[in-house]
Amino acid sequence: MIERIAIFGTGLLGTSAGLALRAAGFSGSIIGWNRSAEGAQAALAMGAIDTAAIHPLQAARESQVVLLAVPIYATLDWMEQLSGVLSPDHLITDVGSTKAQITTAATRLFNTPEHAGFLPGHPMAGKERGGADLGDANLFRGAVWLFTDDPAWQRSSTSATLAYDWRQWVQAMGSKIVDIDAARHDELVGWVSHLPQFVATALSALLEDQVGDAPELKLVGGRALREMTRLGASPYSMWRDIAYTNTEAIDAALQALEQRLAHLRENLKTPELRDEFEQANRFRRE
Amino acid sequence: MIERIAIFGTGLLGTSAGLALRAAGFSGSIIGWNRSAEGAQAALAMGAIDTAAIHPLQAARESQVVLLAVPIYATLDWMEQLSGVLSPDHLITDVGSTKAQITTAATRLFNTPEHAGFLPGHPMAGKERGGADLGDANLFRGAVWLFTDDPAWQRSSTSATLAYDWRQWVQAMGSKIVDIDAARHDELVGWVSHLPQFVATALSALLEDQVGDAPELKLVGGRALREMTRLGASPYSMWRDIAYTNTEAIDAALQALEQRLAHLRENLKTPELRDEFEQANRFRRE
Repeated sequence: MIERIAIFGTGLLGTSAGLALRAAGFSGSIIGWNRSAEGAQAALAMGAIDTAAIHPLQAARESQVVLLAVPIYATLDWMEQLSGVLSPDHLITDVGSTKAQITTAATRLFNTPEHAGFLPGHPMAGKERGGADLGDANLFRGAVWLFTDDPAWQRSSTSATLAYDWRQWVQAMGSKIVDIDAARHDELVGWVSHLPQFVATALSALLEDQVGDAPELKLVGGRALREMTRLGASPYSMWRDIAYTNTEAIDAALQALEQRLAHLRENLKTPELRDEFEQANRFRRE
Repeated sequence: MIERIAIFGTGLLGTSAGLALRAAGFSGSIIGWNRSAEGAQAALAMGAIDTAAIHPLQAARESQVVLLAVPIYATLDWMEQLSGVLSPDHLITDVGSTKAQITTAATRLFNTPEHAGFLPGHPMAGKERGGADLGDANLFRGAVWLFTDDPAWQRSSTSATLAYDWRQWVQAMGSKIVDIDAARHDELVGWVSHLPQFVATALSALLEDQVGDAPELKLVGGRALREMTRLGASPYSMWRDIAYTNTEAIDAALQALEQRLAHLRENLKTPELRDEFEQANRFRRE
């Protein structure tokens, strides 16, 4: 049974996980570490963690489960560092938005009977802005929490039990678990998560250039504009790592959309436009 | 004072206007005409109109204000037909999404002391699906209602009074009036309304092709995907006329976005990506 959890990174997801665990009845200890002390203090003040760690590796050693809730490259860095200090009595899990590189590193560094276990995870939840202050015990309620476990892994019995228990807590936080292959995960989120983000960024940046200083803009823009540019507020700090670790899928998706937009543009006055609208309608009917 | 209104087209906007007028205290008569009798009957059953007209030109003649709530080419057709039968004692107004062609036709056919008046209007309100059944007395509440009056027009005193009164009713329906030049209107909505629509259509059509039959899709897609494709449900029947009457602006906006997406794609791993995110962030901060 999990009684001691360390959360590395008390931003939106880490803080929300601490709050959601408490709301779901977790009564063990939660120690938090954050790159900036202010973020850890905010999580502490909100009750998402009990203690702000001063020595993160020591905090990890003294916990059973380490939740990495930091950007992807920071996750990969922590995996290297933690592999040297944790034992088969530990489980590490994460919330990174791309899973191929993390899952490959998990095979290399963990998940044998002699090493700690690593359970790669990705809750499909978030907000367009980050930070502990936006932490929300209900963030994961109704969301899907993806895991990209490799069937070839042979975990120690303790870390296998911790992985089983963590899945129970994920469900207790209100999420639905879906297991998916890591490569398929990255391909799919390239289409349904990363492409929408980069489109919203490009659209918002273009509109800022074209009409950002038009006094009529605030008056004319309606719900459609707000929705289509909401993700324009997303921070580079988070998306940089996603762009670097899922480059091929995002590149392919963007290029396909450029071609689709050109096709639509060339057919503004032909019956092809009807076909495009009908194909789009089909997507929304499902 | 307006006491007799004819609404041509009892789809979403026409039905909502009838309901909103009643909710705002309009106690005169509202006669409705619709291309399909079912649509008129639905509006009648909802109380948006008092009577379903059988002879639309006669209904127009017997009214003081004719509200054209039909697609743009149908609006242009009705303008031709009504110019032959209405007098300076009448005012026509409309809700069309592009205004340059309609405003030019209004100069040619109306708005002299010897002709009926025409007040070109465009409420920035709607839903991604149409039809009388979705009619809503609150559709225009909090929305902007644009007018593209030409300062050179010399309306008869009766139609000028009716135009003034119609503006009062628009405000009573909860809308904020903004006057704008017709050419500037079409340029601006090309960026902030038509571009988002065509992007959502292209994105939805592309996703239908790529992942429409992926069983994991429903699980993985979150709020971002739903928002970015909501407008994918919009009907071709409405957008065809917009594509035909604002082609140049939409073409330019789509081409600019294609270039912006290509720029972003070519910089997924360069510091330029940061600049794009920051420019997008700026748009959302305003």
